[in-house]
Amino acid sequence: MESHHARIRVRYAETDQMGVVYHANYIVWMEVGRVEFCRASGLSYREMEQDGALHLAVIEANCRYIAPARYDDEIDIETRIEKATTRGVHFVYLMRNVMTAQKVAEGFSRHLFLDHDLKPIRLPEQFYSQFGLSSPQAL
Amino acid sequence: MESHHARIRVRYAETDQMGVVYHANYIVWMEVGRVEFCRASGLSYREMEQDGALHLAVIEANCRYIAPARYDDEIDIETRIEKATTRGVHFVYLMRNVMTAQKVAEGFSRHLFLDHDLKPIRLPEQFYSQFGLSSPQAL
Amino acid sequence: MESHHARIRVRYAETDQMGVVYHANYIVWMEVGRVEFCRASGLSYREMEQDGALHLAVIEANCRYIAPARYDDEIDIETRIEKATTRGVHFVYLMRNVMTAQKVAEGFSRHLFLDHDLKPIRLPEQFYSQFGLSSPQAL
Amino acid sequence: MESHHARIRVRYAETDQMGVVYHANYIVWMEVGRVEFCRASGLSYREMEQDGALHLAVIEANCRYIAPARYDDEIDIETRIEKATTRGVHFVYLMRNVMTAQKVAEGFSRHLFLDHDLKPIRLPEQFYSQFGLSSPQAL
Repeated sequence: MESHHARIRVRYAETDQMGVVYHANYIVWMEVGRVEFCRASGLSYREMEQDGALHLAVIEANCRYIAPARYDDEIDIETRIEKATTRGVHFVYLMRNVMTAQKVAEGFSRHLFLDHDLKPIRLPEQFYSQFGLSSPQAL
Repeated sequence: MESHHARIRVRYAETDQMGVVYHANYIVWMEVGRVEFCRASGLSYREMEQDGALHLAVIEANCRYIAPARYDDEIDIETRIEKATTRGVHFVYLMRNVMTAQKVAEGFSRHLFLDHDLKPIRLPEQFYSQFGLSSPQAL
Repeated sequence: MESHHARIRVRYAETDQMGVVYHANYIVWMEVGRVEFCRASGLSYREMEQDGALHLAVIEANCRYIAPARYDDEIDIETRIEKATTRGVHFVYLMRNVMTAQKVAEGFSRHLFLDHDLKPIRLPEQFYSQFGLSSPQAL
Repeated sequence: MESHHARIRVRYAETDQMGVVYHANYIVWMEVGRVEFCRASGLSYREMEQDGALHLAVIEANCRYIAPARYDDEIDIETRIEKATTRGVHFVYLMRNVMTAQKVAEGFSRHLFLDHDLKPIRLPEQFYSQFGLSSPQAL
């Protein structure tokens, strides 16, 4: 899958006293984008954790703020995989104001695959296609 | 223990665009008060969950807002047990601005004791004293 | 308007280590329900605050937890006005798991109408219909 | 000032169902570190915003996760200025578990100075010393 678009509407709870969205919330939106990307790829995060005993641990998160998002704005979160290996995956995100098409932020997150005991593992083959992998590679 | 005082300082993240603390955050502060109350009673919430396999599930939370708390205010959270039985416990909270002594909010939370599988249980006797119980009572 | 249904999907960020939704987040969902109720009544919260200089300050929030909501559950939030006067409004909420139709929580919030300086005011007549008011009443 | 140490204790609200701290919360802790750094430098964020009409807008935030922080851990947040100019400031953070001294995360945030209308400005000279500036420099 090339990229996936998810939408959220800014909650009052997500604003701060500067009158704009508090900056840590974009990191939460990136997670919404990632989860919906996975769902659209046929991979439920929930089943992945429960049945597959596979966790995507975040090892780095980054966000660059371009224009403030405000209360009640509808935001489009475009998510795609920048790189995936059998060890982990690197997602990138572009967040836009739906009404104005203005970019509000862009970011990335890097993840390691962990098992049920939160130990690093190689991605089980059953999940290769969802992460766009055809053959094992080192990270 | 009669009551316990805990202190927090309002985080920027906790404000909203009305320029005051977002109302759901007082519910989080009540949890801070409850945890510190338990710690002062010799009961680590963490050990209680890990070793005692005892969870305090919230069945009701309530907050009445009296005066707005603002960014950087220091808040005193006074916590006490209103009632405890072998089935559950009812905490009450009073939150004041430390600088002005003004009440900002008051609230309560009601809890059931749950085991590791999140099933209701009677409070194990080892925890009686911390909840001010001398003999088993029905809720 | 009798009642309004809004939907949210539980975010990973909203869970806690008990494996269920952290209890303060239901208070945030109640706000989502309230905002969408107002929007469906022709009343944008955003315009109300900006143009009408009308704020709905929360003076009490309450939630009773019935069954835990979990990560990735879709939740229906049913919102209706229990009572409205020219001084304030009282909303009630019923939250259900969309898939199972099980009630997860119910709650209420009471609000005062405030002006731009956060002082109590009587509701301007332009907003009467949206809150189901035909003539001024005392709270 | 070389660096400043602030402490927080992990709240239940900050954990997620993986049993560790939800990753966006470290971004909030970095803000706690930054605010306390400023306070220790004689610069109240609150007064800065109210009296000085100076805002520190975040233009980038980054966090690298090293070892999971858990509920009830006490965390030391070490904050220092990596670089400051009259246009903005770049903070770096190191977060450690107080009990074990283990690094849990490190991060940075980059900020622009904004005026009351959220427009970029040059830092007023009254604030030079707090940001370690002796003479105007371009970012």
